[in-house]
Amino acid sequence: MSQQVFGLRGLLIGRYQPFHRGHLDVLWETLERCDELIVGIGSAQESHTLDNPFTAGERVEMILRCLGKERARTIIVPIPDINRYAIWVSHVESLVPPFEVVFSNNSLTKSLFEEAEYKVFPTKIYDRSKYSGSEIRERMLNNRPWEDLVPEQIVEFLKSLDAAGRLSAGANQDE
Amino acid sequence: MSQQVFGLRGLLIGRYQPFHRGHLDVLWETLERCDELIVGIGSAQESHTLDNPFTAGERVEMILRCLGKERARTIIVPIPDINRYAIWVSHVESLVPPFEVVFSNNSLTKSLFEEAEYKVFPTKIYDRSKYSGSEIRERMLNNRPWEDLVPEQIVEFLKSLDAAGRLSAGANQDE
Amino acid sequence: MSQQVFGLRGLLIGRYQPFHRGHLDVLWETLERCDELIVGIGSAQESHTLDNPFTAGERVEMILRCLGKERARTIIVPIPDINRYAIWVSHVESLVPPFEVVFSNNSLTKSLFEEAEYKVFPTKIYDRSKYSGSEIRERMLNNRPWEDLVPEQIVEFLKSLDAAGRLSAGANQDE
Amino acid sequence: MSQQVFGLRGLLIGRYQPFHRGHLDVLWETLERCDELIVGIGSAQESHTLDNPFTAGERVEMILRCLGKERARTIIVPIPDINRYAIWVSHVESLVPPFEVVFSNNSLTKSLFEEAEYKVFPTKIYDRSKYSGSEIRERMLNNRPWEDLVPEQIVEFLKSLDAAGRLSAGANQDE
Amino acid sequence: MSQQVFGLRGLLIGRYQPFHRGHLDVLWETLERCDELIVGIGSAQESHTLDNPFTAGERVEMILRCLGKERARTIIVPIPDINRYAIWVSHVESLVPPFEVVFSNNSLTKSLFEEAEYKVFPTKIYDRSKYSGSEIRERMLNNRPWEDLVPEQIVEFLKSLDAAGRLSAGANQDE
Amino acid sequence: MSQQVFGLRGLLIGRYQPFHRGHLDVLWETLERCDELIVGIGSAQESHTLDNPFTAGERVEMILRCLGKERARTIIVPIPDINRYAIWVSHVESLVPPFEVVFSNNSLTKSLFEEAEYKVFPTKIYDRSKYSGSEIRERMLNNRPWEDLVPEQIVEFLKSLDAAGRLSAGANQDE
Repeated sequence: MSQQVFGLRGLLIGRYQPFHRGHLDVLWETLERCDELIVGIGSAQESHTLDNPFTAGERVEMILRCLGKERARTIIVPIPDINRYAIWVSHVESLVPPFEVVFSNNSLTKSLFEEAEYKVFPTKIYDRSKYSGSEIRERMLNNRPWEDLVPEQIVEFLKSLDAAGRLSAGANQDE
Repeated sequence: MSQQVFGLRGLLIGRYQPFHRGHLDVLWETLERCDELIVGIGSAQESHTLDNPFTAGERVEMILRCLGKERARTIIVPIPDINRYAIWVSHVESLVPPFEVVFSNNSLTKSLFEEAEYKVFPTKIYDRSKYSGSEIRERMLNNRPWEDLVPEQIVEFLKSLDAAGRLSAGANQDE
Repeated sequence: MSQQVFGLRGLLIGRYQPFHRGHLDVLWETLERCDELIVGIGSAQESHTLDNPFTAGERVEMILRCLGKERARTIIVPIPDINRYAIWVSHVESLVPPFEVVFSNNSLTKSLFEEAEYKVFPTKIYDRSKYSGSEIRERMLNNRPWEDLVPEQIVEFLKSLDAAGRLSAGANQDE
Repeated sequence: MSQQVFGLRGLLIGRYQPFHRGHLDVLWETLERCDELIVGIGSAQESHTLDNPFTAGERVEMILRCLGKERARTIIVPIPDINRYAIWVSHVESLVPPFEVVFSNNSLTKSLFEEAEYKVFPTKIYDRSKYSGSEIRERMLNNRPWEDLVPEQIVEFLKSLDAAGRLSAGANQDE
Repeated sequence: MSQQVFGLRGLLIGRYQPFHRGHLDVLWETLERCDELIVGIGSAQESHTLDNPFTAGERVEMILRCLGKERARTIIVPIPDINRYAIWVSHVESLVPPFEVVFSNNSLTKSLFEEAEYKVFPTKIYDRSKYSGSEIRERMLNNRPWEDLVPEQIVEFLKSLDAAGRLSAGANQDE
Repeated sequence: MSQQVFGLRGLLIGRYQPFHRGHLDVLWETLERCDELIVGIGSAQESHTLDNPFTAGERVEMILRCLGKERARTIIVPIPDINRYAIWVSHVESLVPPFEVVFSNNSLTKSLFEEAEYKVFPTKIYDRSKYSGSEIRERMLNNRPWEDLVPEQIVEFLKSLDAAGRLSAGANQDE
């Protein structure tokens, strides 16, 4: 995307539990392809579970810490689940400022936005066997090293949240 | 049910994802056993998932296309889930017009309506190894032939919805 | 609407608290203008209040009793409020079968469906000083005659619901 | 109520914003008329507003402080609003233990429980011009004396909650 | 906890599906460690499922029947799920009267209340291989003897609820 | 606020229906008093009504257009209403990144954040007789000039939304 195309805005949605190096690669790549990028934080209402340990606000913080000067053209918006896919695109449209294109490799996201007549582009493929939210959460839970898998700017922040503690709490709900 | 018993209304509830030949058999049979039939479409809020690919409105359409002249004594009502079984019968009662009997082979439905003092009758047993919503969705997902399992009146309509596409989207939610 | 135009479906939405002679006039008129009519019952989740004394199911019953043979080309669908106008059209679309045109004199309904690129036509103007839901509810509450204002087919049904009792209950919520 | 009538349980529902001397009179009177009394706290989800300044938990506390030895046969249960009167009785039934009679002067409560075939008895009439939740909230808001209108056992508790502060906050939502 | 410490209130939360002898042991033990005990009934909105067969009100009843004279210092409060752990402690605080300590062996409960600066104490360990809600529900479902696993005071009550019937209904949701 | 105080983050919440010159004054002033500012957009789920004509996303857009280079230290987050003030602060905390101080003249906001032990500072007083959301909406509705009351950067954007049309739709909900 050439820089002179003023106002082309893209939308990228993820859960970012946590935000990892694969996500960061995609973020840099999509930022190159549009003038402004909206980063939607999915399942914004979730936290403190095995699949979703971090709050939306904590995930906003993770992304902010990685953006550096790109922050000036990035817009981060928490998006609570609505659990009704038939109205999900309208739900997203009502929460974020206007956008023209969507970046996603998720086929449901792709399918829903295409039904609504948006142009959807795939994003860069990163090594999912290496960078994966569930792998990182698993490591955090079992106190194995996870620090190399997330951007270095957020390692201390993640430690301050006692991710391991939250996850082991979520893992261990006895009756 | 003799035809002169004016006003006996029955209730039949299903998810109809999609409406298949087994459902149609049950529909014809229950229509014979009452004067008017309310067809409740369960999980009405769901769509675009592997278990519930079609919207409530699309499921209304499927049933309308099969009813022919029986449409004049059938009432189709979408019923959103309430996820609180203790109040589910009241919830259904508030959404559909008055009815006297319930047709169901589902033991939870049977149990809840019987607690509320409705008469519940079993419905015709069709060949579930052959006609099954999950089997049809599986075939749609894998592009194997499914057309013989649904009423011919809705084959084209289902194709127009790109069922296969929706299902493969739902099947493939990467992180 | 000429009869040979197969499949033109219209959508008409109202709260019908209760369904009155003005509503019936509009129903007959819109039925003439399309091949099939979807009647959406708004605020479907409401009942037993001063503004909304009747359940969605009871309102379905009122309309069924008036339709006569037109029932075969009418589709009645309860529509719960979603209270988020930005996604309301998507919500309606997910609950009713496909439609092409909307009939409404309500400017919010008109505006929202037009934003979603539907064609919206005004409906017949009836005498609102005479036929009005709030007037009828007021009369029911004060035991003044209301029977002339509703279609005669539903007078007995409304009486059986003890509308007056419900309304005076709703009117009198002491602390 | 003679003591040998084992197990007659009554239900009494109020908002108790706050619990005042009129409420206490009704509580004593209904406790005399049954073996066990369930006190339902309505609008349990509300707090910090002009109409509902106190949380459900705070209202439980107010009643506990007044009960003395009658606590052993009283059961206090918060009841969130469900805002669908058609299913409200089922909602209450699912939250409280079984009961046989209802005590209420509220005509909506009376009407809904009677539709569900409960016996509903009126409660003692207290001087509503004197004892009234809205009057007390008004006085709290304007720093006029309210202490005489509530049971003395809860005066200190109410002061500790800074009722006046909460109410003036609720009263003063500037744009 | 010495008995003369007036007003130390503890909070104990469980689902109690059903309330069994292990729960009763914990209840007696925690009652000894505080002056008043709040028993929170979790997942209060659930019932009629395999995991949660009983309503909140039925679970209140079970506990009441076991308490005997301890009822005078026990406060039972149904707590609906909020499914947002980030606000769950605030949700509980708003529904129950003030408390100082929490008793729990559940690590998520412990973690969330400790984040909110409550003191959380472990409870007595009972033989979970013997006393377990899921084991009892399994036995009820398969008509194997379960009576020895629950307090004798509630055996008849549980039988009156047709637990076996509800569970087999929940187990058998055919499509 | 001196620039070397790294990381002092403030929170400012408003509905911004629409964002007007008074809001902009407060925004500039609070940006001077902290290193980073979170702007929470309240009632984020509302739109298309007389009180709340614009979606959350449209309100994000308004603020973005005014920020200029200050965008790099501003974080805009839509905050849906939760309608339970007892848990509102926890709700906000879960949606926004960590903050230390709150800026507000709203006494309910002030009271709730102070109960949660935040420091709350008043904001600059602007001329409310002149700059007021309801005044602007009133003018838009009646096609009187409103352009001078909002920042010039958003005049065109507001016009593109057909604010007048939406408001007159909301104003005119006939039965």
